[in-house]
Amino acid sequence: MSQLTSIERLSLNQITTNQWSLQEAVEGCVRAELPWIALWRHKIAEIGLKESKRIIQNSGIQISSICRGGMFPQSTPKLRQEALDDNKRAVDEAAELGAEVLVLVCGPAAGKDIAEGRKMVEEGIQHLVPYAEERGVKLGIEPLHPMYAAERSVIVSLGEAVTLAQKFQPNQVGVVVDVFHVWWDHDLYNQIERAKGRILGFHVSDWIVPTPDMLMGRGMMGDGVIELRRIREAVEKTGYKGPIEVEIFNQEIWDTPGDEVLALMKERYLEHV
Amino acid sequence: MSQLTSIERLSLNQITTNQWSLQEAVEGCVRAELPWIALWRHKIAEIGLKESKRIIQNSGIQISSICRGGMFPQSTPKLRQEALDDNKRAVDEAAELGAEVLVLVCGPAAGKDIAEGRKMVEEGIQHLVPYAEERGVKLGIEPLHPMYAAERSVIVSLGEAVTLAQKFQPNQVGVVVDVFHVWWDHDLYNQIERAKGRILGFHVSDWIVPTPDMLMGRGMMGDGVIELRRIREAVEKTGYKGPIEVEIFNQEIWDTPGDEVLALMKERYLEHV
Repeated sequence: MSQLTSIERLSLNQITTNQWSLQEAVEGCVRAELPWIALWRHKIAEIGLKESKRIIQNSGIQISSICRGGMFPQSTPKLRQEALDDNKRAVDEAAELGAEVLVLVCGPAAGKDIAEGRKMVEEGIQHLVPYAEERGVKLGIEPLHPMYAAERSVIVSLGEAVTLAQKFQPNQVGVVVDVFHVWWDHDLYNQIERAKGRILGFHVSDWIVPTPDMLMGRGMMGDGVIELRRIREAVEKTGYKGPIEVEIFNQEIWDTPGDEVLALMKERYLEHV
Repeated sequence: MSQLTSIERLSLNQITTNQWSLQEAVEGCVRAELPWIALWRHKIAEIGLKESKRIIQNSGIQISSICRGGMFPQSTPKLRQEALDDNKRAVDEAAELGAEVLVLVCGPAAGKDIAEGRKMVEEGIQHLVPYAEERGVKLGIEPLHPMYAAERSVIVSLGEAVTLAQKFQPNQVGVVVDVFHVWWDHDLYNQIERAKGRILGFHVSDWIVPTPDMLMGRGMMGDGVIELRRIREAVEKTGYKGPIEVEIFNQEIWDTPGDEVLALMKERYLEHV
């Protein structure tokens, strides 16, 4: 297996340094010479879209994705419309910032019927696609780990994400492969192959043993059991050569000075990804 | 969908009343007029196999399964042999107690290579099958939730469990369907259909929102989001009419007097399963 020799594809997913504001994160990336960043909408909202755009443009850093749209299943038509409107705003933000990809965390079912939830996700994407396409923004369906099926997304395997994406054109909808969410899947490598031409993003972190927490338990690359390099190479074999985001929800990392996090991240990226 | 009208198939998986010894659990079942119980080996070990057998035989209660064999992947041939020896003891216990099914929790990979872990599981089962068959004990592969892939089992979807079981004869190896572990699967109903003739057990509990804990966060039926009746009917459609075990890891339930747990369990079983 071949090692990465530079950080030219490395992207800081901003949630990894949740302790930082958008401006601090961008400045941190500049200091660390990271070429990419993924922005979260609540961080954009803190200072406004215009100021966020100014900061990004002045930095020369490229945006790998905007997190996140989605949350399509809702219990009433009114709430579904509100969710769709919010997704349109997310598309607007991505377009304004020059981000090619809006990551979709599709949302849990509105009730107990998970099949119905999946149907609402498909309908939501259907409604959003023309709006996003006009603005040059691709929608990246990120299948989440099945342990989030009841609270964050009914799309919990790469296979179903690919099947859903394939109902649209490749320039409209694709998938985001996050190792933390998909590493357990016995059919992972077949599904990555199926995703050929549809992969819009690749996220890395690690699965720590024992897992300290369902949400905040992700680890730095190399601290867990995920075969990062094997998965990265499978993703590249499909033709994906885009940015590789480090996305880690972990209180300990959030309590660490951001510059230290970025330094460790770079080191572990070259060593383990 | 049709409601269950009696508790003739209801089984107490002993872990649900972990506060009770084997004897207390059996006495509790007698008081509650539960016809079935699933025994855990560490509870059998506390009083010995002979005494356990005596208690069970005197009670007239039937055993739905013994929990558990498995943990096949190990880092050295010696450790794999030890695991196999322990599985043989588990088979012996099941045979001695007159239990038809030994539940397999297959074990995590010995290192990072999850495919290698799955191979070791298959080899382990291969070695165990003749021994179990001679003693009239069937091996029930229980796919666990993917969140346990790193710590408890590399077999984390019903699909792969069925594929694995099909490498053996139906009287040798089957699968155990536990709603908590499989409810999230977009392909669940197809996989249940594929499992026709191989289902050796059906376990119920619920998925609570928000989920309080990865291990101890299971809920009583009706307290969560799982479509219990829909899954139960799909399982029955394959021809499975055997016991339905209630298996709940939950500290709050473990802190509740066992008789109360059994009363609630019966009520919820009729109402929700």
